[in-house]
Amino acid sequence: MIHLTPEVQNLIDQALAEDQTFSDPTTHSLIPHNLKGVGLVRAKSVGVLAGVDVSLAVFRRVDPRLCGEALMEDGASLVPGDSIARVEGSAASILRAERPALNFLQRMSGIATDTARYVKAVEGLKSKIVDTRKTVPGLRYLDKYAVRAGGGANHRMNLADGILIKDNHIAALRSRGLNLKETVLLALERASHTVKVEVEVTNLEELGEALEAGAHIIMLDNMSLDTMRQGVEMVNGRAILEASGGINLETARAVAETGVDLISIGGLTHSVKALDISLDLEFNQEVG
Amino acid sequence: MIHLTPEVQNLIDQALAEDQTFSDPTTHSLIPHNLKGVGLVRAKSVGVLAGVDVSLAVFRRVDPRLCGEALMEDGASLVPGDSIARVEGSAASILRAERPALNFLQRMSGIATDTARYVKAVEGLKSKIVDTRKTVPGLRYLDKYAVRAGGGANHRMNLADGILIKDNHIAALRSRGLNLKETVLLALERASHTVKVEVEVTNLEELGEALEAGAHIIMLDNMSLDTMRQGVEMVNGRAILEASGGINLETARAVAETGVDLISIGGLTHSVKALDISLDLEFNQEVG
Amino acid sequence: MIHLTPEVQNLIDQALAEDQTFSDPTTHSLIPHNLKGVGLVRAKSVGVLAGVDVSLAVFRRVDPRLCGEALMEDGASLVPGDSIARVEGSAASILRAERPALNFLQRMSGIATDTARYVKAVEGLKSKIVDTRKTVPGLRYLDKYAVRAGGGANHRMNLADGILIKDNHIAALRSRGLNLKETVLLALERASHTVKVEVEVTNLEELGEALEAGAHIIMLDNMSLDTMRQGVEMVNGRAILEASGGINLETARAVAETGVDLISIGGLTHSVKALDISLDLEFNQEVG
Amino acid sequence: MIHLTPEVQNLIDQALAEDQTFSDPTTHSLIPHNLKGVGLVRAKSVGVLAGVDVSLAVFRRVDPRLCGEALMEDGASLVPGDSIARVEGSAASILRAERPALNFLQRMSGIATDTARYVKAVEGLKSKIVDTRKTVPGLRYLDKYAVRAGGGANHRMNLADGILIKDNHIAALRSRGLNLKETVLLALERASHTVKVEVEVTNLEELGEALEAGAHIIMLDNMSLDTMRQGVEMVNGRAILEASGGINLETARAVAETGVDLISIGGLTHSVKALDISLDLEFNQEVG
Amino acid sequence: MIHLTPEVQNLIDQALAEDQTFSDPTTHSLIPHNLKGVGLVRAKSVGVLAGVDVSLAVFRRVDPRLCGEALMEDGASLVPGDSIARVEGSAASILRAERPALNFLQRMSGIATDTARYVKAVEGLKSKIVDTRKTVPGLRYLDKYAVRAGGGANHRMNLADGILIKDNHIAALRSRGLNLKETVLLALERASHTVKVEVEVTNLEELGEALEAGAHIIMLDNMSLDTMRQGVEMVNGRAILEASGGINLETARAVAETGVDLISIGGLTHSVKALDISLDLEFNQEVG
Amino acid sequence: MIHLTPEVQNLIDQALAEDQTFSDPTTHSLIPHNLKGVGLVRAKSVGVLAGVDVSLAVFRRVDPRLCGEALMEDGASLVPGDSIARVEGSAASILRAERPALNFLQRMSGIATDTARYVKAVEGLKSKIVDTRKTVPGLRYLDKYAVRAGGGANHRMNLADGILIKDNHIAALRSRGLNLKETVLLALERASHTVKVEVEVTNLEELGEALEAGAHIIMLDNMSLDTMRQGVEMVNGRAILEASGGINLETARAVAETGVDLISIGGLTHSVKALDISLDLEFNQEVG
Repeated sequence: MIHLTPEVQNLIDQALAEDQTFSDPTTHSLIPHNLKGVGLVRAKSVGVLAGVDVSLAVFRRVDPRLCGEALMEDGASLVPGDSIARVEGSAASILRAERPALNFLQRMSGIATDTARYVKAVEGLKSKIVDTRKTVPGLRYLDKYAVRAGGGANHRMNLADGILIKDNHIAALRSRGLNLKETVLLALERASHTVKVEVEVTNLEELGEALEAGAHIIMLDNMSLDTMRQGVEMVNGRAILEASGGINLETARAVAETGVDLISIGGLTHSVKALDISLDLEFNQEVG
Repeated sequence: MIHLTPEVQNLIDQALAEDQTFSDPTTHSLIPHNLKGVGLVRAKSVGVLAGVDVSLAVFRRVDPRLCGEALMEDGASLVPGDSIARVEGSAASILRAERPALNFLQRMSGIATDTARYVKAVEGLKSKIVDTRKTVPGLRYLDKYAVRAGGGANHRMNLADGILIKDNHIAALRSRGLNLKETVLLALERASHTVKVEVEVTNLEELGEALEAGAHIIMLDNMSLDTMRQGVEMVNGRAILEASGGINLETARAVAETGVDLISIGGLTHSVKALDISLDLEFNQEVG
Repeated sequence: MIHLTPEVQNLIDQALAEDQTFSDPTTHSLIPHNLKGVGLVRAKSVGVLAGVDVSLAVFRRVDPRLCGEALMEDGASLVPGDSIARVEGSAASILRAERPALNFLQRMSGIATDTARYVKAVEGLKSKIVDTRKTVPGLRYLDKYAVRAGGGANHRMNLADGILIKDNHIAALRSRGLNLKETVLLALERASHTVKVEVEVTNLEELGEALEAGAHIIMLDNMSLDTMRQGVEMVNGRAILEASGGINLETARAVAETGVDLISIGGLTHSVKALDISLDLEFNQEVG
Repeated sequence: MIHLTPEVQNLIDQALAEDQTFSDPTTHSLIPHNLKGVGLVRAKSVGVLAGVDVSLAVFRRVDPRLCGEALMEDGASLVPGDSIARVEGSAASILRAERPALNFLQRMSGIATDTARYVKAVEGLKSKIVDTRKTVPGLRYLDKYAVRAGGGANHRMNLADGILIKDNHIAALRSRGLNLKETVLLALERASHTVKVEVEVTNLEELGEALEAGAHIIMLDNMSLDTMRQGVEMVNGRAILEASGGINLETARAVAETGVDLISIGGLTHSVKALDISLDLEFNQEVG
Repeated sequence: MIHLTPEVQNLIDQALAEDQTFSDPTTHSLIPHNLKGVGLVRAKSVGVLAGVDVSLAVFRRVDPRLCGEALMEDGASLVPGDSIARVEGSAASILRAERPALNFLQRMSGIATDTARYVKAVEGLKSKIVDTRKTVPGLRYLDKYAVRAGGGANHRMNLADGILIKDNHIAALRSRGLNLKETVLLALERASHTVKVEVEVTNLEELGEALEAGAHIIMLDNMSLDTMRQGVEMVNGRAILEASGGINLETARAVAETGVDLISIGGLTHSVKALDISLDLEFNQEVG
Repeated sequence: MIHLTPEVQNLIDQALAEDQTFSDPTTHSLIPHNLKGVGLVRAKSVGVLAGVDVSLAVFRRVDPRLCGEALMEDGASLVPGDSIARVEGSAASILRAERPALNFLQRMSGIATDTARYVKAVEGLKSKIVDTRKTVPGLRYLDKYAVRAGGGANHRMNLADGILIKDNHIAALRSRGLNLKETVLLALERASHTVKVEVEVTNLEELGEALEAGAHIIMLDNMSLDTMRQGVEMVNGRAILEASGGINLETARAVAETGVDLISIGGLTHSVKALDISLDLEFNQEVG
């Protein structure tokens, strides 16, 4: 379920401000202010829906008297022609809100669609598809929601969500004379009791060190399928294993077959292909 | 030139808030607070740079004592290994800022890179590559800046930027008994003296109506190359012609060769592939 | 039609904050919290109404349970005694909201009233009365709306609304060796395709240069009536002509008779005389 | 002394946002980004200066590298040609900031100028010229500062600043069976110990009641000069007396001669005539 | 009566943001989204209620479909088990809102409870219990409201609320050669007519100076009971007397018996003991 | 280390706004604007320092030209008379900022002082003292920082920080037919891989269920010392144990001696006694 948090409402306001929604000479000069219309939001390609409530919130923010209803739910499969949502009321208001409403919906559905492809690729295997922190500034919450709508799971929402020791952190500690194992031990000692510790490793030796230190999660960075397979055997359930780096739709299933728990895909959110969705507007006669 | 407007600064703050930059247990538990480092922002693939000043502003916002400098300028061509920027100071601060700084830079450079490919495709012809209002909510200014950095031009920044009569507007007026020509005439009559009037047409007959009415700009929507060529001849410079709809890198040059003035590409901003850029951090010893 | 945009709502909140609406010892110590009242907003002088919906929004923001309704519409002519709006509910809430509600209404109606005088002065002639960017900080949208309510038209809403080359710009380019004609040509070449180019000229020679260069709009700055008349003849419809500088209610008609398209009046918004409007409150007995 | 409070800084940001300062096609297309200039802010009519620091803050907010300095201080008398302030740096930045900077300065100086005329009119008498809460929404602090710059004093900054029982309050209490004296007594009893109680009276009988009740300040509403004179005698220093209603520059001195302590003038802030002030820009050659 | 001002609403939003109300993995993973519940807010110790409307506003902000109603009013006495408010709707929403809602309510009721103890201690005597500006940053309005709910009165809401000359101010003027009496006279001369002047004195000599100068209110700082008694006699009603410094529940009555008008207690707001209040949630079955 | 995040800076602005820092008639009427002073922030009782950088930020926000420096660091022990910080510059600015600066410092140091007493009470034992989410709205970050400054550790910063299944959650699931063990298993299954699962138990039987289910952390709610001891034995390191409910300074050591890992104390932040800290101001002569 999506929450229209104050931050999301604020983001909608920013979208309206940057589009100058209320200074629109096109509707101002052409659309009679008593003209009513019915807008249908329609899929124009195959995909997975995400963001329908956000897009309806855009219409209502532009004009609280618009009546909107979702005809499908986030997570639903779309085929061209599907009616996603319906909005009724002032034609001018619908036209003003159209572009920002679709901008939210098309990006979020694009993310859900791509995620669903990865999820399908690993179907039947235990690996979960997870996202990263490579999201568009200001859209973290919506981007990560869309991943869930597509059937994926979320990695850390933000830095506070857990310790993740990456190459640069390891290098920092090495400059102070600590090896990878000592670094993980230090993190475990200093970490809050609520936090899990994850560490990035690049070969089986480092994996061994991480395991001995007691890391809760270990990220296998850019490893070959063979090495991952050996890693999975070595760990044997004593830590959660995340495969990361350079994985795409073609290779995802093979990676999952190594037995890793998680496959993280930065491209789910950093390289989004908007799903093709449009608004069809039908016009009624003036009503009183 | 990019301006770090209050809105951009606000967007940076949102990015830091959503990433909980200042509640980072990883750096908190591991990185000595007096450890200094030098971060190099480096290209990992071929592309065009955009957003270097925004990414440096992220580092400075996280820690005003960080020293950052751009080593390349927006619009520059990148090859893997190029050093884009350099930031020096507290290692913990650099690590905290890394992800949001790169999130801005990778998206913007991705847009610039894609734009530059289109610009190159139409090289030597008069057609300009322009963007649309299909941008990510909250990033309109940065997305459109990145298009310029890639050599493209901007279409309307927002609704206030001009009259653009699209299919839904035309249908609205038709429901009131006006044909396309009458609609354009109405817009011209009511428009502010500062505003140009653009109208979308789908065939040569409509193009003729638009031209007679005196539209300043005419959008040729999803026309065949042949039809566009005939349209260019028919108009003969009396209006600006914009080709729009379903144009991609493969077809762009052929479209340009029809003689249209503008080619608009929604995908430049709605479907962005992040450019691969990373941060390499080197650690110094404690400095007093 | 006015839109109660997020920015307008924000401005209302600022007005309430600076007036400490919710820390009012006068109503707090005197007005029983169950006392109901009916407030009538009444004109006390002759004028034109603007801002009635904004003033009602102030009452509702102070107390969402207040019922307000407009009895007249923006643009209506007012004579002393006219009832403009009616608000009913908690007497204390009405009294708290009175001053900020009237502050909006009196300024906006003052602008509309003054504009209407100019519009009447040029009645029957083709010149439109337009405003400038000389508005009160934060009130641009409302100030310009009020001009329209008074029958005027808007010049640029903001810098983004078009190119306007003024004396300082011309001087800047002259310092680089360009004359007025070359400057206009440069602007036309570099301008976005959506933008019109206006230039300020002070004599007929400059007018000729601007015309040759192809400026869309030409501002005749502080010209004599005779010169303007010659200018109108010279241009003969090939550009829009705007008269500007030192024009007042006494001279406006003569200026319009020269045949210019636009007459811009800074004083419409920079020197506003508030229209006299007050609130009469009648008190009912306690209701339950 | 003026404080550039967070609220004032916020107001400057609103002014820049509504003017789209950073999306200015005129400077963007014409002004070389390395062109330096010197801007002189100059008086073009006689008046009193107010707001010079605010206007300089506008320039600095647009471009922190601009160097600005005040050449005169708020409260100074201006004659045409006086140089008020000097700003040096990027010509494009100065041109972007010009209009909003002047919009602040012209309004504030207009208020100071008008106030100074009233102050001069009552010179040598004990009456102080005070303002009201009839200010432009969002500008209360600046409007009231400008009154002080012109030699006036401030009445209540906001509702929290003291109890002021006006006609509508009196009517409310009357509907509950209290007369004016009882109303004032109630306010005095319930008021915080930090607050003074003022009441509006319209004749000498009410004045007597207010005095007996112990009101600290009494507003003489729209009284004749004779009645005010008798009121001053009757009160004989036992309360502060404020003359209010319909007083203008012609009548102010006669009102002051009745012996009242305060003369309040709504028009100081609700009907402001902007002072004519302009920016002259001189252009240097490129500096490295 | 409490007002849910824009500032209070903003504070609620901050509370929700810092608690990440909408990213709650506990309710997300466990609570069925169609599970309804009824929450009862219950007192768990003896005290005085304050803040019930604010806590209900928190529930509504988290989920506008929650129905909340106050079962008791601010200022009511509480005994363990009392039902303060009832909220009905989505169980997940109630659980998300619980902690921030109680955080407001427990602090405010803690302040009211403590204040009521002081008020009771001086029952029958004329001294009022007043607070200070020693409030928690951002909560001034709510903290001071809670003091009133507990039967206390408010001293200055903020610096603008009156002149209060304290030791550091007196020292500042002494460094310029003015004694306490001259300092008070200077303040009275320069103060706005709406403002009262209070001064802090530490012995009877200073009290005499303050009285002669005409101070409206005099703060007796850390004086012995005997000295205060003499001070009350000396002043004999010519100024308001405030006892301040080191007064606690044990000594408050004796201080009141000296005859001072006000007793100010910083601890009411700077050292608050939260009142024990909890939420009991009962779960219904799924409703359609 | 504390971070002056945008949220903290915003909180400082709220504190200044609610105190009307820039509308202070006391300093305005009395303190010469060129009077310089040196303020020393001094401890007046025994305790532990927290918040010195925040308080200095308040001074600088009021007047950027004030020079402030910390003389002691957060976490330091204080005895009466200790000089904590020094601020130099405009006397009026220091006086304006004094109260909000101290309000931050006194609360934060009060929290650190109380925490340090608990930490000392369990000295030599393994139990950590941790806080709760019972913080003052808007001050979560500062309140929790102050706990760390006092030597304590933080429990969840916010809801997103981990799963904590409390009595109301357990009751919700029981209404759906799940027992405690099944509830914990459900949470573990659905939880993100980054999150630990904590559950509240009230007796040894529930503890057994939680342990079997595999809860990472188990909260022993209001258990007797004996029961806790048995619980510690039963668990034998297989989960982290947190003692919670009704623990105070007298009982803390006995609780720690049972062998629990964590002792959580709501009162650390919900019932804070401000530490007595004051500002002594010394005045210099005018400097130029």
